[in-house]
Amino acid sequence: MTATEQAPAARIVLGANQYGKAEVRLVKVTRDTARHAIEDLSVTSQLHGDFTAAHTEGDNSHVVATDTQKNTIYAFARDGVGSPEQFLLRLADHFTGGFDWVTGGRWAAEQYAWNRIDDHDHAFAKDKSEVRTAVLLAEGGERSLVAGLQELTVLKSTGSEFHGFPRDRYTTLAETTDRILATDVTARWRYNRTDLDFNALYASVRALLLAGFAETHSLALQQTMFEMGRRVLQAHPEIDEVRLSLPNNHHFLVDLAPFGLDNPNEVFFAADRPYGLIEAAVQRDGDAAPAPVWNTIAGFC
Amino acid sequence: MTATEQAPAARIVLGANQYGKAEVRLVKVTRDTARHAIEDLSVTSQLHGDFTAAHTEGDNSHVVATDTQKNTIYAFARDGVGSPEQFLLRLADHFTGGFDWVTGGRWAAEQYAWNRIDDHDHAFAKDKSEVRTAVLLAEGGERSLVAGLQELTVLKSTGSEFHGFPRDRYTTLAETTDRILATDVTARWRYNRTDLDFNALYASVRALLLAGFAETHSLALQQTMFEMGRRVLQAHPEIDEVRLSLPNNHHFLVDLAPFGLDNPNEVFFAADRPYGLIEAAVQRDGDAAPAPVWNTIAGFC
Amino acid sequence: MTATEQAPAARIVLGANQYGKAEVRLVKVTRDTARHAIEDLSVTSQLHGDFTAAHTEGDNSHVVATDTQKNTIYAFARDGVGSPEQFLLRLADHFTGGFDWVTGGRWAAEQYAWNRIDDHDHAFAKDKSEVRTAVLLAEGGERSLVAGLQELTVLKSTGSEFHGFPRDRYTTLAETTDRILATDVTARWRYNRTDLDFNALYASVRALLLAGFAETHSLALQQTMFEMGRRVLQAHPEIDEVRLSLPNNHHFLVDLAPFGLDNPNEVFFAADRPYGLIEAAVQRDGDAAPAPVWNTIAGFC
Amino acid sequence: MTATEQAPAARIVLGANQYGKAEVRLVKVTRDTARHAIEDLSVTSQLHGDFTAAHTEGDNSHVVATDTQKNTIYAFARDGVGSPEQFLLRLADHFTGGFDWVTGGRWAAEQYAWNRIDDHDHAFAKDKSEVRTAVLLAEGGERSLVAGLQELTVLKSTGSEFHGFPRDRYTTLAETTDRILATDVTARWRYNRTDLDFNALYASVRALLLAGFAETHSLALQQTMFEMGRRVLQAHPEIDEVRLSLPNNHHFLVDLAPFGLDNPNEVFFAADRPYGLIEAAVQRDGDAAPAPVWNTIAGFC
Repeated sequence: MTATEQAPAARIVLGANQYGKAEVRLVKVTRDTARHAIEDLSVTSQLHGDFTAAHTEGDNSHVVATDTQKNTIYAFARDGVGSPEQFLLRLADHFTGGFDWVTGGRWAAEQYAWNRIDDHDHAFAKDKSEVRTAVLLAEGGERSLVAGLQELTVLKSTGSEFHGFPRDRYTTLAETTDRILATDVTARWRYNRTDLDFNALYASVRALLLAGFAETHSLALQQTMFEMGRRVLQAHPEIDEVRLSLPNNHHFLVDLAPFGLDNPNEVFFAADRPYGLIEAAVQRDGDAAPAPVWNTIAGFC
Repeated sequence: MTATEQAPAARIVLGANQYGKAEVRLVKVTRDTARHAIEDLSVTSQLHGDFTAAHTEGDNSHVVATDTQKNTIYAFARDGVGSPEQFLLRLADHFTGGFDWVTGGRWAAEQYAWNRIDDHDHAFAKDKSEVRTAVLLAEGGERSLVAGLQELTVLKSTGSEFHGFPRDRYTTLAETTDRILATDVTARWRYNRTDLDFNALYASVRALLLAGFAETHSLALQQTMFEMGRRVLQAHPEIDEVRLSLPNNHHFLVDLAPFGLDNPNEVFFAADRPYGLIEAAVQRDGDAAPAPVWNTIAGFC
Repeated sequence: MTATEQAPAARIVLGANQYGKAEVRLVKVTRDTARHAIEDLSVTSQLHGDFTAAHTEGDNSHVVATDTQKNTIYAFARDGVGSPEQFLLRLADHFTGGFDWVTGGRWAAEQYAWNRIDDHDHAFAKDKSEVRTAVLLAEGGERSLVAGLQELTVLKSTGSEFHGFPRDRYTTLAETTDRILATDVTARWRYNRTDLDFNALYASVRALLLAGFAETHSLALQQTMFEMGRRVLQAHPEIDEVRLSLPNNHHFLVDLAPFGLDNPNEVFFAADRPYGLIEAAVQRDGDAAPAPVWNTIAGFC
Repeated sequence: MTATEQAPAARIVLGANQYGKAEVRLVKVTRDTARHAIEDLSVTSQLHGDFTAAHTEGDNSHVVATDTQKNTIYAFARDGVGSPEQFLLRLADHFTGGFDWVTGGRWAAEQYAWNRIDDHDHAFAKDKSEVRTAVLLAEGGERSLVAGLQELTVLKSTGSEFHGFPRDRYTTLAETTDRILATDVTARWRYNRTDLDFNALYASVRALLLAGFAETHSLALQQTMFEMGRRVLQAHPEIDEVRLSLPNNHHFLVDLAPFGLDNPNEVFFAADRPYGLIEAAVQRDGDAAPAPVWNTIAGFC
């Protein structure tokens, strides 16, 4: 079709959209007694609904200000957080219930752990070994609630093999029956109910993931990953699916032979990049395909 | 339902999955003449297909090693890169064509720009002002090719208003007719063809986004964002959709009154967190809904 | 003085210099028994000595290649690491003893902690809550050995006041008798001997710093900091000086009054920037001033 | 000496110390005409003086609050910034002149560059290719003023050799007459006067550093580094010394022979860690040794 034959250009329109306030850093101290508790979160709120006029005309009459969303987060925290999942559910109810044109949204949180210093009542040290995550997608009456963790770095110094892979023109990798296996666990799991003890579930899932990693004699990181997810689903009927994204943090055995030394799997170079990247969903047979929304949350298809 | 009444547990199975090598750091020098050219990329390759046995049994007979994927990237670079889009298309053809059980995959690249130092033949300084991106999703014969840029930080010192937004119990924000508008542009655009001059298109889209930001008198960041996308679609029929994700990098006017000073929009505190986060797709009216895969690439629904 | 009156320009010469390999990522597995142990470090080696010809003429006959320094680190690790301090002392002895023109150097290490997963023999989870550091400066026969830790984040939810500070034209801060006190501890301590059980000392100093933070009712972060250092010096005659660098990680009480809510020190905004930055040395009365080298290591004067 | 023979423990005292507010993010818009200008800085202010009582007793009567220091920075910006060096000098004069017990301090700034978008009057894009730095140390009447830049990434695709280095038991590196030379320039230069056009000087030094890198046929990164500093000192009598800290960002030639391909310096793997680290001072012959304070600023001895 030449330019002169070209059909009248289609009108350009707004598609999917969302907006809000990201990374609201909230620290809640519960001090009913001398023994304080702290909850430390980064909360994001984004609204879905009829916001076309703001985009096409700069008409803000529907735009619940991102500053208002931030204020709401702090005001709600006055009643306590409880768990990131509960807190996000409250926010979703508030925003979808309070404004006719807000039909849904995306709410997300990271939570950071603190341990008491020597059992002190009000002194704490931050536990940076992992970050707890939660994402809630609401559309109409539907709720997709996904819990997770990330940045949980684990390593096995033996009990990992890798061989039997196909060899083509570009294959140079040697087979091995003993290597270091190391990864940073990012896990997301989808709840099928919202009336749950989310904190207890988090602790349970975390422990299952760690045990799955530690106890699996690994022939492939894929195998370890599947077993980690399998254990979670087996133990928790309230979870429909687990998604894992695991870098293979390569530890290369250093060749010490030029220096007249052997190296029986003792001295390794820990590489930064590139790294393997292994990702999968683990689910129950016969389950309906998850809503596309879930792909969006999980970040891969 | 008690445990004894419980239905037989559904079998736990593998769902969607992908694996490969991430962030392969590739620098290609073209030195046919004394005037060298450099291409600097970080390339990720992940395969889709039948990899169930690796997950459930540790059988690697289908697992094209991530190391092999890395080697392939470097070997292909011997012939030149050209553009990230072309390079990813070559990788996809190779992997889907070379292994029966590889049905698709995800290939992605970041490209970093370098400028000559004073027009020198072989000395360069890195231009860190933005990162060019490309993602290719291949499933069966289908190709979804998405170009983009990220980390392009822009600011308008006037020509931005924000007022007329609804006020509820949690609203404290004052209206303003003159504020700083600043953001880090992340843009993704989807091509509907693959026989394109991707480097020229990148330069054009980048210029359109910058002009859309600079020239729009803004009543809302949403309005600026829509106009940025609109200009790209209007100029480029080979692009079906643009997605933008724009933080609102707040610059708060400092109250100097306690020090006996006025502050007529001159002295600002540039805040880190929280920040607004405004995201939307801009598309042509009547276009079929994009494949779910696109949501996955774009990172929001 | 005009150009024509100008004295002959002084010759331009090389001043202080050092070079080497930085951030050599070393993971050492000790596997004498089924119960493995891992040591995970980032090691830097830099040499001092007569390297003038390399700078002025490109004559590398004295330049022990940085690649050689890296190889030496891996080769030495074959015998075990033991502690970062011991390892750096070995490296210093090797390089200053092995090359006539190498008169000293700077060796540094970070060490990352790993905990067993559920007491497993060879599965570990990384403990990211702090990083252990060591720096050794050697010049001639002299050794300056400084141990440390960084990124240890702590918080007190009460027991911290701040008042009585001077008020000038630019002072707007309100006085408080109850605030959150939070910081990321960076500590450096200088040993006066090298025949020490460095791992036991590290554990002891870490515990003393944490207790000093937790147990001090704080009228100023300066007071808490001094007490942290004081406890270390009091317990450890083998340490001559402690230097602390403590950001004041501000937690601002959110004003909930506009929403009809009180906020009795329960809901806080954790700010990123700016932050207070409080730094000091704690030492014994009458001690000779530390060598300038120490200022360099500690990073402030 | 046994415990019973031990001398009475020396009193534990405060040593060197400084405190203040770090990373005050200041954006100044100059809008005298329709053609705006912006200055974007991160400013740190720390005071030296008599602060012993705060450390030992929690007596804050001398503690100019870090919040007050922040306020002062914003208030002073009302009159304009001009250059980071001028701005730090004003702050030093204010704090050392305004409080009897403040005898000196350390003031530092980073400045971020912005370019106009297509010569627009009030729309800008951030130039992230380098960060400009300034540090001022004041003690009594003395001023040590050090300007600098960092994160300026440069690369030569040829014109770099490395051979003739000594070989010992741990040397495996091959000699080369053609390699990629790449680094991130961190430079610090010390002015001997304060009545200077600091912005013009910055532009000149930056250009000299780039030209020194580009135009030097390199036999060692040390040689390139020295030449970069030499050009600055030769052109600028108002500068007494230049210190450079240059990582050697290794680009390893990929071995394509296993794939039946040659690789005549065309395809490289850009490594992250470890990296070479080459540091030196360049100065004029016969100059008095710099004050120790300079080592502290420059970060190495």
